[in-house]
Amino acid sequence: MAYKAPVRDLTFFINEVLEIDRYTNQPGFAELSSDLVTQVLEEGGKFADEVIAPINHPGDKEGCHWADGGVVTGPKGWKEAYQAMVEAGWPSLTGDPEYGGQGMPYILGSAFGQFTAGASAAFSMYPGLTAGAYAGIHANASDELKSKYLPKMGSGEWGGTMNLTEPQCGTDLGMVRTKAVPQGDGTYKISGQKIWISAGEHDFTDNIIHTVLARVEGAVPGIKGLSLFLVPKYLVNEDGSLGERNSLMCAGLEHKMGIHGNATCVMQYDEAVGWLIGEEGRGMNNMFVVMNEARLGTGLQGLAIGTAAYQAAVEFAKDRLQGRSLTGPKNPDGPADPIIVHPDVRRMLMEAKAFVEGGQAFILWTALHADLEKSEDEAVATKAKDYMALLTPIVKAYLTDKGFHVASLAMQVHGGSGYTEHFQASQYLRDARITMIYEGTNGVQALDLVGRKLPANGGRAIMTWFGEIDAFVAEHGGEGTHKPFVDGLAEAKKKLQDGTMWLMQNGMANPDNAGAASTDYLNLFGVTALAYMWAQMAITAQKAIDAGSEDPFYATKIATGRYFVERVLPDADMHLKKMKSGAEVLMALPAEAF
Amino acid sequence: MAYKAPVRDLTFFINEVLEIDRYTNQPGFAELSSDLVTQVLEEGGKFADEVIAPINHPGDKEGCHWADGGVVTGPKGWKEAYQAMVEAGWPSLTGDPEYGGQGMPYILGSAFGQFTAGASAAFSMYPGLTAGAYAGIHANASDELKSKYLPKMGSGEWGGTMNLTEPQCGTDLGMVRTKAVPQGDGTYKISGQKIWISAGEHDFTDNIIHTVLARVEGAVPGIKGLSLFLVPKYLVNEDGSLGERNSLMCAGLEHKMGIHGNATCVMQYDEAVGWLIGEEGRGMNNMFVVMNEARLGTGLQGLAIGTAAYQAAVEFAKDRLQGRSLTGPKNPDGPADPIIVHPDVRRMLMEAKAFVEGGQAFILWTALHADLEKSEDEAVATKAKDYMALLTPIVKAYLTDKGFHVASLAMQVHGGSGYTEHFQASQYLRDARITMIYEGTNGVQALDLVGRKLPANGGRAIMTWFGEIDAFVAEHGGEGTHKPFVDGLAEAKKKLQDGTMWLMQNGMANPDNAGAASTDYLNLFGVTALAYMWAQMAITAQKAIDAGSEDPFYATKIATGRYFVERVLPDADMHLKKMKSGAEVLMALPAEAF
Repeated sequence: MAYKAPVRDLTFFINEVLEIDRYTNQPGFAELSSDLVTQVLEEGGKFADEVIAPINHPGDKEGCHWADGGVVTGPKGWKEAYQAMVEAGWPSLTGDPEYGGQGMPYILGSAFGQFTAGASAAFSMYPGLTAGAYAGIHANASDELKSKYLPKMGSGEWGGTMNLTEPQCGTDLGMVRTKAVPQGDGTYKISGQKIWISAGEHDFTDNIIHTVLARVEGAVPGIKGLSLFLVPKYLVNEDGSLGERNSLMCAGLEHKMGIHGNATCVMQYDEAVGWLIGEEGRGMNNMFVVMNEARLGTGLQGLAIGTAAYQAAVEFAKDRLQGRSLTGPKNPDGPADPIIVHPDVRRMLMEAKAFVEGGQAFILWTALHADLEKSEDEAVATKAKDYMALLTPIVKAYLTDKGFHVASLAMQVHGGSGYTEHFQASQYLRDARITMIYEGTNGVQALDLVGRKLPANGGRAIMTWFGEIDAFVAEHGGEGTHKPFVDGLAEAKKKLQDGTMWLMQNGMANPDNAGAASTDYLNLFGVTALAYMWAQMAITAQKAIDAGSEDPFYATKIATGRYFVERVLPDADMHLKKMKSGAEVLMALPAEAF
Repeated sequence: MAYKAPVRDLTFFINEVLEIDRYTNQPGFAELSSDLVTQVLEEGGKFADEVIAPINHPGDKEGCHWADGGVVTGPKGWKEAYQAMVEAGWPSLTGDPEYGGQGMPYILGSAFGQFTAGASAAFSMYPGLTAGAYAGIHANASDELKSKYLPKMGSGEWGGTMNLTEPQCGTDLGMVRTKAVPQGDGTYKISGQKIWISAGEHDFTDNIIHTVLARVEGAVPGIKGLSLFLVPKYLVNEDGSLGERNSLMCAGLEHKMGIHGNATCVMQYDEAVGWLIGEEGRGMNNMFVVMNEARLGTGLQGLAIGTAAYQAAVEFAKDRLQGRSLTGPKNPDGPADPIIVHPDVRRMLMEAKAFVEGGQAFILWTALHADLEKSEDEAVATKAKDYMALLTPIVKAYLTDKGFHVASLAMQVHGGSGYTEHFQASQYLRDARITMIYEGTNGVQALDLVGRKLPANGGRAIMTWFGEIDAFVAEHGGEGTHKPFVDGLAEAKKKLQDGTMWLMQNGMANPDNAGAASTDYLNLFGVTALAYMWAQMAITAQKAIDAGSEDPFYATKIATGRYFVERVLPDADMHLKKMKSGAEVLMALPAEAF
């Protein structure tokens, strides 16, 4: 089952839809021509296909190994693949040039991230967690810590992790108990247990730099008493060489439903030496920088697993001969037709394709805005920041829900074969399921959206977003191929606006109304966002056709988008109706009635 | 995580909603008082809770074992639990008294089946497959075969299986290659390979009676050349004692995503001695008897796994302390509130509860009609047969889809804990997923519904069903607690009628339209059927309250149904819109465009 990174789909969106060449005036985009995008994505896709994808399924079957003393080794061949990735320079693609990074925009990193997560979700978490720790240190640590740690983390020579969860708390981090005792020399001694630490220990790198949320002795209880620490596996000497082993270890691996190739560790800190990142008591604020990036990465991961699952389903549907087309044999010389002739199999493949390609576009579109946050044009930067705050929970929750949905459709296309571990459909389904949970469950994302992101700055972000869609609809309204796309978008936006109004009117009066509506509202938002992506793609594709292109890619893109409009957009009204039913039916029962 | 069989919910539906005491004039119901129902269900629930449930999770972790020579052993303790079940007489509950069965109606077996499948889906397949094989033999085999095999199969002393699938064919059984050579003495020699044979080999019983679909040498190709054979693991002597080992064996076990406790076997037949069941060339017709029963059983299984998953989620949501209620602390003395206070957690639990209890009712309602097929009143029997034909694909597909959906919601309630194998949420999710696939994928069910069941007898079944709902709405219309239920049902039925008309008008012109609409149509049907169940339950519950009952069970039932009406019924319109979009957007792309 050969995975192929979706290079063409992504270059289409970056180069043709977003017209990346228009952005050369933005910081970091000076050298980013569409030619360079194509070149980097082709190379990146090749690397994902040839080096990462082959180790994915064997790694799922083998899993990681824990040995006495907390020694963890990855599946066969994973260390070598990791080293090949470091040697090829991929981890440093978007890193800060001041610390040896290549300084390319995040949109490129996001594209490469989609390729690697599709090739192997479990593998991509090793560089993914390092990038998260890098971002946390980069945003808030002292220059000294940054100079000491970022170059080797950026290159991938060292790994990195995020240590938040403890047995008694995941979502509610105010209950963190891990403590930090200041030593008077600028260091702290960190003690406590962290669980579910992805890539917490492994044999791929010489050192692993943990970022750890802990409470300084005597600090206030709750969120405000938390600080963030840098705690390396091996202490680093002044000359950058590795010194003593720090007193921390992996006490065990979690047995999980999926992502078996990633070591999910119980981490034990026993007076381990750590350094404060940023200020005391600002741990959660510092962590949020990382978490927002990690949430985008999780949305990307869920969707990318969907991409791989979709491809596997297509291959199976073309190969498997079973039954005859309802409109007469399509493979008359064979014993049966390939199952791709059956409308219900088509439905599953088209639905998968429509979500996958719409989601890929949405990830890139938001990634562009992540880059534009750094714009020197204040209006551009403000809008980008507003969008990123508003849309991050949607990228995370909607795309992971749909990634899992696509993986389930892909298994269904496989029939009984898909349920056996001989095919990869099971791995995709099992791997995809975690993305709906970690980095804040999708329910937490929905609460973040309605409780924090929507009302921020008097609702400025959503008003800007509605204005953008209105302008788009006004510009592109009228007859033509794109009409159903623009009409569908306008209709979905109207429903989203209706839902937003409902939230404003009813969420204030009773906060439970906001909580009760949150998931359906997020989904209504998600389907509208993807409708916007599909409208843009359809218009660009039609332009290419009008300009004389005979590449069937464009007609396929339009046909896939049409599926989205006809067969997915009806979700919008359904979500609106459900959210408007309010909290009463949800909260009617006392807890003991369950 | 202690599973509790939903005894109260099922006795409520059987005794109070269906008013089972009304049916004493029907064959097999003479002794079935509501008191007896309660007694049998309480005993059955206790058996499921105490004997079967405890082996479920350990069995998932351990799986089955295959050894040289095709010897298969189940997980630790499973053989003992199976023997306890046989000793307690449960397998013979609904068996034909002529062959030692207790002759109780299917509705009781269906209730006990829900208990055991919830306690352990993998375990329940051992008696489940035996019951399937029993039904196939009972319906069509000679009296000689029946006398020889049914008593011990009915008691559970011997196991049974269904052998259909081969590597090149599952759905499309016309391609079966396993051959049968007549020996001139009434026996056949069966040779070939069958795959995915559930309970194909194990150590629980002295003998296993395989029913095998094969092609008699020289028979026509395709479906019409198939015959059904009885092929015992050990030949049975005239006196009923076991004779020689037959030349068949389990060549290996399938590695699957779930139902690890059930041995899914590759079966190798090498001139094994077999006996014809029914007539040559009637294999598929004979198998359909079994398959219809197996499809009901699969719907039941998927839903029952959802029941168990829901219970686990409730337990977790009450125990896990995380965050505070949006409307102020509910557990002020604790470090945080139990997560059941959060509206989005409530949403997941209420959705699970509404599907689980609605589905349980629908299973029992159809089970009653399966019993009424045997009525001496021709009108009653005809209606029952029409309903069973029409509704079997809906029970199978809608309830397994929702069982999986519920299992996924239950995992989500667990957060990260649910993704570890320490909790049972993962097993439920993995176990539930197969029910959407086997016994005919849910897509095949949808095709069966629109292609065969709907048009049969000029649409008589659906017209009767619509008439029943219209009469119900007319009888119960008007103000009262039940108003939203009856109005919701009437509205859903209108949409289902609209969808049915669309199918009649568009499916004839282009069969792809029927195929393209089939899954959404089936789901529209499913949500309407559950709305009907909820309306009946709400009315009965309100009657009990009006009659002075202070049991909170009734108010809880009504509140749960209200969730269904407000939060699930909006699916109806969404499915109608999607199905009406037709085949064009599905079939637009050539296969190579995927």
